[in-house]
Amino acid sequence: MKELSTIIALTDSFSKLPGIGVKSAERLAYSILEMKEEDVKEFSLALQNAKNLVHKCPNCGLYAEGPLCDVCSDPSRDHSVCVVISYPKDALAFEKTNAFHGIYHVLGGVLAPSKGIGAEDLDIDHLMQRIDDEGIQELIIATNPTLEGETTALFLARLLEGKDVKVTRLAYGLPMGASLDYADSMTLQKALEGRKKL
Amino acid sequence: MKELSTIIALTDSFSKLPGIGVKSAERLAYSILEMKEEDVKEFSLALQNAKNLVHKCPNCGLYAEGPLCDVCSDPSRDHSVCVVISYPKDALAFEKTNAFHGIYHVLGGVLAPSKGIGAEDLDIDHLMQRIDDEGIQELIIATNPTLEGETTALFLARLLEGKDVKVTRLAYGLPMGASLDYADSMTLQKALEGRKKL
Repeated sequence: MKELSTIIALTDSFSKLPGIGVKSAERLAYSILEMKEEDVKEFSLALQNAKNLVHKCPNCGLYAEGPLCDVCSDPSRDHSVCVVISYPKDALAFEKTNAFHGIYHVLGGVLAPSKGIGAEDLDIDHLMQRIDDEGIQELIIATNPTLEGETTALFLARLLEGKDVKVTRLAYGLPMGASLDYADSMTLQKALEGRKKL
Repeated sequence: MKELSTIIALTDSFSKLPGIGVKSAERLAYSILEMKEEDVKEFSLALQNAKNLVHKCPNCGLYAEGPLCDVCSDPSRDHSVCVVISYPKDALAFEKTNAFHGIYHVLGGVLAPSKGIGAEDLDIDHLMQRIDDEGIQELIIATNPTLEGETTALFLARLLEGKDVKVTRLAYGLPMGASLDYADSMTLQKALEGRKKL
């Protein structure tokens, strides 16, 4: 018995997703065969729609269904404060806090010389132009607190030294609900350095 | 900013898959947006094909694209030995060994009174009929070595006592490549009970 070509094709597709290995892909493909026909149809349509209806906002790089994304086209948001993120999905985390009402700019990655990703691969020129065009007064650099994210943040800060714009970085420290037992020493060191008077 | 309806729909579809939580579903949905259009089209088509082209073999319950599955329609296989499995996917594990050339019968689950799954929900009557019709001489019960799988195996063995068919169960013991350190006591006990002369 050879595996059915239909199942092989489906397994292949699942295994192209990030974090899904061959074994998981096989398990997921078989689970589709047991799913309701309606659910599978919806799934198939949702995949097509994702490619057909969604594109990147030409202004900030977030995903959009209209000509501009919800953030850029919303006049009630504070267009003078801009969070700089690596990927569109990162904006979601900020939106979920309900604590940020500014705008975004998506770099499209982080500087990673080892992977051949340099400044020219990131959407930096356009960011510079936006600062002038849109009168952005503060840039909050929100790349991940990793080696590459830090490098990118420092690079941007240097680049922006001449511009009349405030450049800030998200605070480092203990995550809420964390246990000191499990905090790594880098984080603890940053939490000490950034301590505040109560 | 609300999440785009297209992305919400796709996240919903992913989260209906087994073992995929909301966070993973979100991550996968966003990864689709970054995938090549061709790959997404293939994925969407593979999902549709899985429902349109694949059905269960009316004889044994394995998945099939033709009228019967590859196993049932293959005269070169030994139709006198039948492995009884819970789900179609289980056959794959046997096929990968290249050590089994008999046929299969899919029960469609295991007995689980706590979930309301009784003997009438499993494909047992049809199995009885197949023993007579196809001249099956040995049934190898290959339900999982869990409480429910064991119960199902014992139930079948009882039921088959009157029939002129040999009923066997897969051997228990240490998995190959395992370390004694990590073997649980139930498995070790079974391995002791089933020890063989060298």
